[in-house]
Amino acid sequence: MTLPPSYLDVLAAATRINGVANRTPVFTSRMLNTQLGIEVFFKGEHLQRTGSFKFRGAYNALSRLDAAAQQRGVIAFSSGNHAQGVALAARLLGIPAVICMPTDAPQVKVDATAGYGAEIVRYDRLTQDREAVARSIADARGLTLIPPYDHPDIIAGQGTAALELCQEIPDLDALLVPVGGGGLISGSALAAHGLNPALRVFGVEPANAADTYESLRQGTRVTIAPPDTMADGLRITTPGRITFPLVQQHVEAIITVSEAEIAAGTRYIMAYLKQVIEPSAGTGPGALLAGKLPSGVRKLGVILCGGNIEPQVLAELHR
Amino acid sequence: MTLPPSYLDVLAAATRINGVANRTPVFTSRMLNTQLGIEVFFKGEHLQRTGSFKFRGAYNALSRLDAAAQQRGVIAFSSGNHAQGVALAARLLGIPAVICMPTDAPQVKVDATAGYGAEIVRYDRLTQDREAVARSIADARGLTLIPPYDHPDIIAGQGTAALELCQEIPDLDALLVPVGGGGLISGSALAAHGLNPALRVFGVEPANAADTYESLRQGTRVTIAPPDTMADGLRITTPGRITFPLVQQHVEAIITVSEAEIAAGTRYIMAYLKQVIEPSAGTGPGALLAGKLPSGVRKLGVILCGGNIEPQVLAELHR
Repeated sequence: MTLPPSYLDVLAAATRINGVANRTPVFTSRMLNTQLGIEVFFKGEHLQRTGSFKFRGAYNALSRLDAAAQQRGVIAFSSGNHAQGVALAARLLGIPAVICMPTDAPQVKVDATAGYGAEIVRYDRLTQDREAVARSIADARGLTLIPPYDHPDIIAGQGTAALELCQEIPDLDALLVPVGGGGLISGSALAAHGLNPALRVFGVEPANAADTYESLRQGTRVTIAPPDTMADGLRITTPGRITFPLVQQHVEAIITVSEAEIAAGTRYIMAYLKQVIEPSAGTGPGALLAGKLPSGVRKLGVILCGGNIEPQVLAELHR
Repeated sequence: MTLPPSYLDVLAAATRINGVANRTPVFTSRMLNTQLGIEVFFKGEHLQRTGSFKFRGAYNALSRLDAAAQQRGVIAFSSGNHAQGVALAARLLGIPAVICMPTDAPQVKVDATAGYGAEIVRYDRLTQDREAVARSIADARGLTLIPPYDHPDIIAGQGTAALELCQEIPDLDALLVPVGGGGLISGSALAAHGLNPALRVFGVEPANAADTYESLRQGTRVTIAPPDTMADGLRITTPGRITFPLVQQHVEAIITVSEAEIAAGTRYIMAYLKQVIEPSAGTGPGALLAGKLPSGVRKLGVILCGGNIEPQVLAELHR
């Protein structure tokens, strides 16, 4: 059994990514603070390298591989931000990388991933199992599979964003973090509670992809049908084996948001903070604007997890 | 005759706006630098209060009024960023403000301006002369008219953005600044040449609104037909009386950009810098991507002048 990561692993990850990952800026909005009557601090991971927090975990995990494994290379399956995070981390560390992407992945994401020097292997999403494709290539070529969230080094790396935020704004009393597979929120919770055990940690999940909300309610990992949400980074069907117990231990509540609330949150950040975020990052602002934050919070940190929005989604949101 | 402002006026303006205006961040893009083979530093005035640099000049001009004039109040005509700049500056200084806006101005801009506490007076753009409307109200109520660019205090205030940029990146060898009425570029040039007389200053203007380009070519202020450009902040028909001689003296060349180049520049900043800018601010990036920067520049400052883009324009750009 894999041991879950700890606060110390987040600190170690922070040392590894120091000078490589961007220390992303923190944004505030006078207008939003006035409207909500609380202070909100947005951690801008859309300004992280590759446009999302995923680079943090990928770089941490890849730099932890031993020399032989680094020389053989890594493989990941993703059509999204994890692919780009692994591809760039591999290039910076001189590690060969194979990324399995569906044949119908947006060309712009395929190009970006290939642009970081990764070898792209295409598979048919409708007839092939991506994990099986990746495993067969990994076995044949001796590659290490880098999972998108359910891995201690990935979790610890993702926790560094919240660590930076809590260090920069030391008297936060709560964090609000988007929930997909749980890598970001469990890492964030480890960081937050390592610094301040009293800090309240809330997750935010699309109502249409509420696998973690439902799993917490039932007290066990449940699997939902493939979710239909514009927050493409959060389209996960079940929480991770390692992440879920961490969420159970550290997270006070999961807030669910409708598609309309996600759209409103995404638009708000673009209109008033002038920051381009993807819908997954609009979940937190959407929850705030909908008045869904539990009471008693006065100084809130919110992770804006990424900024890789498809042009047609951007257009659709403003039409 | 009004005396033109000097470098010292820009320095004085910087002292006046200190702690009131945002000291906006500077953005860079590894990818763009690699692509262009030069270093580019973008000054993010879309993150200025009210979403554009216009707040700088407005606050400087209003804080220079004597106590009696401040008590009587100010008036401005604008459907855009100058309106919001004057409205917020007036509120912060406790000065009554009247803003004349056309009856067909976007409701979101009317609301934003009213939200800063200004009194809005509507006029019919097709049948009424906005300057005459404003002057008659100004005369009747003893208000001071605050022009959008052709005023020494406005010019000096706008120059503080370039001043900050040149102070933060002290070895720039050139600046690229959007040109509307010339307030921003003449202030920028005063700041730049006050710090370093050898610094090259370039303007960028929509080919569809090339009144300054044409005026420079002819050596005299010319008036063009009302321009049709998506860069709504640069829809000016003639350079200012005070700004134009400063442009003649300080600006090496004006680069003109097509509507397609403006669109490409705006999209690039959104896609790769994840910053929401308005088309007027996309002119500089558009000129760079089109390879229109004169040769010999190695370290360039570019002013991103604002971020107040209409939702439908944002949609149109990404469709």
